[in-house]
Amino acid sequence: MPADGIAPPRRTPPTIRDVALAAGVTVGTASKALNGRGQLRPQTRERVRAAADRLEFRPNDLVRSLQRGRTFTVGLLTNDSFGRFTMPLLAGIEDALGAAEILVFLSNLRDDPEREAIVVASLLAKQVDGLIVMGRRSDPRPPLAVGRSHLPIVYANSRVTDPAALSLLPDDAQGGRLATVQLLRAGRRRLAHVTGPAHWESVRHRHDGMAAALAALGLDLPEHRLFRGAWTEAWGHDAVNRLLDADPTVDALFCGSDLIARGALDALRERGRRVPDDVAVVGFDNWEILAAAARPPLTTVDMNLHDLGREAARCLLAMVAGERIAGVRRLPCSLVVRASCGAVAADAAVSPRDAPPA
Amino acid sequence: MPADGIAPPRRTPPTIRDVALAAGVTVGTASKALNGRGQLRPQTRERVRAAADRLEFRPNDLVRSLQRGRTFTVGLLTNDSFGRFTMPLLAGIEDALGAAEILVFLSNLRDDPEREAIVVASLLAKQVDGLIVMGRRSDPRPPLAVGRSHLPIVYANSRVTDPAALSLLPDDAQGGRLATVQLLRAGRRRLAHVTGPAHWESVRHRHDGMAAALAALGLDLPEHRLFRGAWTEAWGHDAVNRLLDADPTVDALFCGSDLIARGALDALRERGRRVPDDVAVVGFDNWEILAAAARPPLTTVDMNLHDLGREAARCLLAMVAGERIAGVRRLPCSLVVRASCGAVAADAAVSPRDAPPA
Repeated sequence: MPADGIAPPRRTPPTIRDVALAAGVTVGTASKALNGRGQLRPQTRERVRAAADRLEFRPNDLVRSLQRGRTFTVGLLTNDSFGRFTMPLLAGIEDALGAAEILVFLSNLRDDPEREAIVVASLLAKQVDGLIVMGRRSDPRPPLAVGRSHLPIVYANSRVTDPAALSLLPDDAQGGRLATVQLLRAGRRRLAHVTGPAHWESVRHRHDGMAAALAALGLDLPEHRLFRGAWTEAWGHDAVNRLLDADPTVDALFCGSDLIARGALDALRERGRRVPDDVAVVGFDNWEILAAAARPPLTTVDMNLHDLGREAARCLLAMVAGERIAGVRRLPCSLVVRASCGAVAADAAVSPRDAPPA
Repeated sequence: MPADGIAPPRRTPPTIRDVALAAGVTVGTASKALNGRGQLRPQTRERVRAAADRLEFRPNDLVRSLQRGRTFTVGLLTNDSFGRFTMPLLAGIEDALGAAEILVFLSNLRDDPEREAIVVASLLAKQVDGLIVMGRRSDPRPPLAVGRSHLPIVYANSRVTDPAALSLLPDDAQGGRLATVQLLRAGRRRLAHVTGPAHWESVRHRHDGMAAALAALGLDLPEHRLFRGAWTEAWGHDAVNRLLDADPTVDALFCGSDLIARGALDALRERGRRVPDDVAVVGFDNWEILAAAARPPLTTVDMNLHDLGREAARCLLAMVAGERIAGVRRLPCSLVVRASCGAVAADAAVSPRDAPPA
């Protein structure tokens, strides 16, 4: 047995051979001891473990991966340069995968199909156990080209044209209903909607949800109070100015994004409208750094991307284990209530604003 | 040789054995043919490559990694939940590593030391070739605990207390000088500074840069025009109101972040000050979604995080190749000119604003 004491400085990490040498056993015995396999005397097992600790031996996942046919790695593909959607989704994915000691390769494809092909080939060569694909949501995307590989893939916050694939999406229609019901419960009846480009699926669904909530009370959203444009503050500002010119009686505004809502709030303030007293406002995204800092702080729909990431990772793990999951699943949004839509009692009925307080 | 034609459906990816079988050669010959090694007849090499193409054979990086002692993977550790700093840095890292077919594991440590330890152990087990560590910049961070491993580590946008380590940082002092010189060249002389918390290193450096640029013209920044507070819009708004109460003669404002600048612009507008005519404003970050949408659009310092990421990856590759690099390196910031600080001729001298145009 080697003398105990200070190990010499080394430039390479210790191997199982070093551990075996230090413990005075064969490599086979050291391997059995560390993996908890085989018939060994408890003292031997303990001696090997102590040597491994002393040497700071770390098992090589590559070897284990080859043995087990899995690498415990997952690829996450995004096109989101701001990280606004990627970071919360990643947090949920890491929460679900962390317990399984799975790490995430992240790559930003930058909407470049050539780059996508190169990155996917590289991920396949690294034998990832599965992929999570995020995407822009203007249109359903074609399935990722992985050749004949049967790699499990989950599309998260992205819809895919392949009906045999799994897409997880926020329930935009339900989010639109939530926002609208909140405004109705605050007593508002003359609602307007300022939102993003008409060809985005999420724009259609959020509008559908709003229309359904209004219809339940026999109300509708007239064309002159519906403004579809860009996902920008400038559009929110511009649209509200047009809206107030066209219909000064509007008493509530549902904005398709928090950026739009920020522009809308600025325009309302400049036109002397008090929020929420004159016009109540609800946004969409709960982009906290913008929503909480709005004046007044913005009530907004949260897509719960963290939960969506967690569910995407759970589904991926199930698929890696052999389960087949397909179709489009929509996960519920929630409402984060701040000052911009006025206080509403938790159990307030949807009633006219002019009703006297109980 | 097997019959040509349609391959049967398979559930597992093809191996080098399948390629050898399809080409009618031994596994050793197939391996030589695909790796371009050994003495082979060109026809044989061609036949193996054709079989590999037909079967969509992808080489297994795990095997190659074990052979070469490198995995062509890198870990990126962050604490940035918004992705504001992570995504541009990642883009630069991917640009530098992409050509080398290296993929990036991203993990958000969420300022949790326990989580950091678990993630680092997992990255070490996966035999990453190196790590890039991002961090909050309030204080230098302790070196990452990697035990006796001699893994190359680069600290990016994060300073480390270990003088033998490499830290890459934006040159905040130079950025502060850039912003100030721009305001001086626009003819302003009564400058104010609204910035973040005093204990942040970047706050001190940006202020130092501003003071140096002022001193070069024999000017200084009086205490009553210096406001240190929070990295928020609300602070920018509040500080400008206090500033205008204390000194209505101020004609320029350098803000320590774009969020602060957004709050400042709102307050200036509400107080009836025209930007840039009455008060010129420069921010810091070039957080484009906020800076470009500001009213007026915000001139701001860009930390060039994309370049910083590229340099971090280049240094890491050099360290993986055996080079030793240590110390603190500061990379230059640049100025993105928009409307908020007024037009300045490209070659304008720093001259009093009252000087008549040439």
